[in-house]
Amino acid sequence: MSTVTTAATARASEARPAADGEPGLGATLLAALDGSQHERRMAGRAAFPSEGMLRDPSLGLTQARAWTLDRLGEFVAAGFGQAIVAIEQTSRDTQLQSLIDFETISYGDLSVAIKSGVQHGLFGGAIAGLGTPAHHERFLADALSLRTLGCFAMTERGHGSDVASLETTISYDPDAGEFVVHSPRWSSAKTYIGNAAEHGHLATVFGQLIVDGVERGVHCILVPLRDADGRVLPGVTIGDNGHKGGLLGVDNGSIAFDHVRVPRDLLLDRFGSVDAEGRYLSSIENANRRFFTMLGALVRGRICIGGGAAIAARRALSIATRYADRRKQFRHPHSDDETPLLDYLAHQRKLLPAIARAYALGFAQNELIDAYGTVSSDPDHDPRAQRALETLAAGLKVLNTDFANATIQTCREACGGAGYLSENQLTQLRADTDVFATFEGDNTVLLQLVAKGVLTDYREVWGGLDRLGLVQASARMVGGAVIERTGAGLLAERLVATARRKGDSAAFYDRGWHAWMFEERERHSIDSLARRMRAADRDSFDAVNAMQDHVLFVARAHMERVVLDAFIAGIEASRTAPPGKPWKSSAPSSP
Amino acid sequence: MSTVTTAATARASEARPAADGEPGLGATLLAALDGSQHERRMAGRAAFPSEGMLRDPSLGLTQARAWTLDRLGEFVAAGFGQAIVAIEQTSRDTQLQSLIDFETISYGDLSVAIKSGVQHGLFGGAIAGLGTPAHHERFLADALSLRTLGCFAMTERGHGSDVASLETTISYDPDAGEFVVHSPRWSSAKTYIGNAAEHGHLATVFGQLIVDGVERGVHCILVPLRDADGRVLPGVTIGDNGHKGGLLGVDNGSIAFDHVRVPRDLLLDRFGSVDAEGRYLSSIENANRRFFTMLGALVRGRICIGGGAAIAARRALSIATRYADRRKQFRHPHSDDETPLLDYLAHQRKLLPAIARAYALGFAQNELIDAYGTVSSDPDHDPRAQRALETLAAGLKVLNTDFANATIQTCREACGGAGYLSENQLTQLRADTDVFATFEGDNTVLLQLVAKGVLTDYREVWGGLDRLGLVQASARMVGGAVIERTGAGLLAERLVATARRKGDSAAFYDRGWHAWMFEERERHSIDSLARRMRAADRDSFDAVNAMQDHVLFVARAHMERVVLDAFIAGIEASRTAPPGKPWKSSAPSSP
Repeated sequence: MSTVTTAATARASEARPAADGEPGLGATLLAALDGSQHERRMAGRAAFPSEGMLRDPSLGLTQARAWTLDRLGEFVAAGFGQAIVAIEQTSRDTQLQSLIDFETISYGDLSVAIKSGVQHGLFGGAIAGLGTPAHHERFLADALSLRTLGCFAMTERGHGSDVASLETTISYDPDAGEFVVHSPRWSSAKTYIGNAAEHGHLATVFGQLIVDGVERGVHCILVPLRDADGRVLPGVTIGDNGHKGGLLGVDNGSIAFDHVRVPRDLLLDRFGSVDAEGRYLSSIENANRRFFTMLGALVRGRICIGGGAAIAARRALSIATRYADRRKQFRHPHSDDETPLLDYLAHQRKLLPAIARAYALGFAQNELIDAYGTVSSDPDHDPRAQRALETLAAGLKVLNTDFANATIQTCREACGGAGYLSENQLTQLRADTDVFATFEGDNTVLLQLVAKGVLTDYREVWGGLDRLGLVQASARMVGGAVIERTGAGLLAERLVATARRKGDSAAFYDRGWHAWMFEERERHSIDSLARRMRAADRDSFDAVNAMQDHVLFVARAHMERVVLDAFIAGIEASRTAPPGKPWKSSAPSSP
Repeated sequence: MSTVTTAATARASEARPAADGEPGLGATLLAALDGSQHERRMAGRAAFPSEGMLRDPSLGLTQARAWTLDRLGEFVAAGFGQAIVAIEQTSRDTQLQSLIDFETISYGDLSVAIKSGVQHGLFGGAIAGLGTPAHHERFLADALSLRTLGCFAMTERGHGSDVASLETTISYDPDAGEFVVHSPRWSSAKTYIGNAAEHGHLATVFGQLIVDGVERGVHCILVPLRDADGRVLPGVTIGDNGHKGGLLGVDNGSIAFDHVRVPRDLLLDRFGSVDAEGRYLSSIENANRRFFTMLGALVRGRICIGGGAAIAARRALSIATRYADRRKQFRHPHSDDETPLLDYLAHQRKLLPAIARAYALGFAQNELIDAYGTVSSDPDHDPRAQRALETLAAGLKVLNTDFANATIQTCREACGGAGYLSENQLTQLRADTDVFATFEGDNTVLLQLVAKGVLTDYREVWGGLDRLGLVQASARMVGGAVIERTGAGLLAERLVATARRKGDSAAFYDRGWHAWMFEERERHSIDSLARRMRAADRDSFDAVNAMQDHVLFVARAHMERVVLDAFIAGIEASRTAPPGKPWKSSAPSSP
């Protein structure tokens, strides 16, 4: 059985140049998959601690949590996480570095990656994204160095996906100049909160802000949880979520507040503040838009989870493919040799399409990373660019996490009994990534968000037309402006145009033909959903509910087209053809 | 979050009669799903220990193994397992009881079920099925009572699916009147063997029998592993497979033999023996047929694994559906209430088709159980009946275990973060059933076995025809005798005949139309594969390998048709229509 593929072994083997000094196939593929962040990723691999980054699966809960915290400390000592809480949030470099740091850590134990995500990405990220420079200066350095371990306390027992309906209250007391943080009911307690059960001292707590009796919607405030000796503070009740299906190294727990008083300056008030006179102030008039702006500042988490899942899937594919290449079973006819598993068509079907898809998703994730770098470093970015980023982040989070769960399971089965032994990593990867489909947004809810984003674009283009006009326009050239192309998509667009001109003679092996089919499917599904929505009573739960199949289909059709575009562009970029040579399908029967 | 559904809670709630004294819907469905074994299953539920049958997930390896052995002892004390090693192997009652016992135990911790499967089903079953009355009298009572814990030592490091190529040798030494059991290479050691790492004292060991220098193929022999104090015996080397992806309560390990001497009478020699003069004797002349006869005697294990997986899936569906009925999220429009998850179409799509399929697979499993009862209790059964049983057992093992893995995962995701907490059972069920796809036969290999069984039937019917005659016959009425109907299938056959007469006007909602479509798919896939095989060079690895997609498709098409037949028959049987009233589809648009 192959041993684990960590960043260290990737560094040692996959990037090795061929004998003639030219980069070998492995190095070419690695560079292609690394994309625009190749150098940053290589630097991350070089800094990755070379030993002891895989957890003994038999460690109990307490030991596993301590081990994980220690490993996170090692990563911080090696320079990881610095960018995650960087004060210069608008630097493109630091924003990109934070994503690559998380992905690199994901080559080791995923509990460590998620603990890093909780501490630096979510806790630190909330302070950075929702706080003001005073908060940054006061808290970020300690968050980075792990001197202050923190929680991101958003989800409650009663509300997870529906964040707008959180029950925790953050009430301003003008006499004391303090906020009172309170959990009115059992269902209001925060739960599944990482760092809560044991290590957290400070929490970014989300709740309904109430100022002078007026509800101002969900805001975020810093609340101390434990004193310097680790004792839970008065008014705070902590529970332990105990043993979980995976990620045993992360100490998830529940937090309830009983009228806990917090100084006024602990409100993370970038988007909404309360002044010394007790007046509520916000640069965003509309409460709904303010809510989504705050959530939008947290988009990085979803990008990280998708990226981490993608790496887990690739690690599993690497293990299973190496095994299949060595493991033999059943005699080869007319020979004394036995047949490697990888020679069986049925076994190839399990692994090879998944490898191709891993590349496709990797290329798409690179586009997402680039888009994040652009949007997050431009304080005046177009709201449409923000929406496109959020749609892409949500959709790729779904595709990557679903892919990881399915693929790691396939790899486990492809390795037979050996795959079931914990020492061979697969069951651990599978158990750890399982919940990636749930946290940072339930995958079904996120797909609905993707569809909503796609339809909003559609409405902006077609909204002005009346019903007849819409149908006519749709029939003529529906979606010409709806299907927005990223950089990678421009190549696909040219291919589509070519395939379209070929008409019926378009070959099945032609990439342009595939791109065209995916595009047509997307167009058709959006167009018919939009018409259906227009005809339906949007205020009727039943009418909207009845469209959910269609909504999810639109989301998947959109995302699969985006990924195909990225795949085509990524393959092209990895080809060593001299610059300027036109792209040509390498398929056998392409004309 | 709902607590676990054990047999005890099923007893308490689901079988409850309606207020008017008539059996309620739950009781009717329970009886339908229980099938012919309803009374036996009810007795099992009544005998199921009512408390302490769910393992604390935080127990370490050693504790988990000890806990599991203790619980198995409780089941034995409650009367379970008696039939599993019953000496009267040909009693239909005891054979059926052994299957129901395993399924009932599967309502508790699956490590206990699998340990029971190892001890009673495999170890006891090998003695019962491959041994003679002298072995039964000497060993079975102690195997039942757990006085002798045992191993089923078939799989080796180098050979799992390819049992015929096992490397362990069982060489007869005529001078000493003993067998010498030996593992010639590292790859020859047994591995993943349950009860090996800690508890096993005796093993049924499979290896190549060599008598007077002649290899006689795979046979099975009893080999002592440990002395009364638990010390490993000389010549035996035991390894521990350590932490696994699940089933932590089962102590899997490796066993290597260094010229271990065993008395002659420990060979389980029902199908092949060595007499005092050192002569090999077998009632089955053909070595290949002898090998498959021995393996066929072990078919019960596959039936149990499929049945246990089905129960795990149903437990998960019960948990997730109850949760979805109570858990609310997002406000219902024009109301102060929030919406239960189960009201969302997207959530229904996750759970409801899986519930329907759980019933379909349950009905099909009942047919398998009935077929096993018939075949195993008739010592003179037709070889075709044995082959049909093995095909059905292999196919349903695949469908049930794939279904369990996919469905438990769906249920986990449908319960969000709560689904990830170990106390809510889902991740534990998922981790435990994972390897069900591998042991008792890798699912891909089993599907190939299913296709082979189907094609053998086909050849027996059509083999006499030449190529042209075959094509003509196929065109007229292909497969009329190929699609063998079990009892449940006869109803489907009538429906198909009706749908066929209706022709194009057959309604989409008509069950007969569905049965017809499934049947046509099966016919077409078998027919075209048979023609393809006839044209191919059967000695060429590449030619046969190239057909694997098609082979797996045939296997799936066959099994899905079998399950649909069972579903239709099971639904019909559960209807309370007076006897004699003709079956009529309840679908809305059926004529």
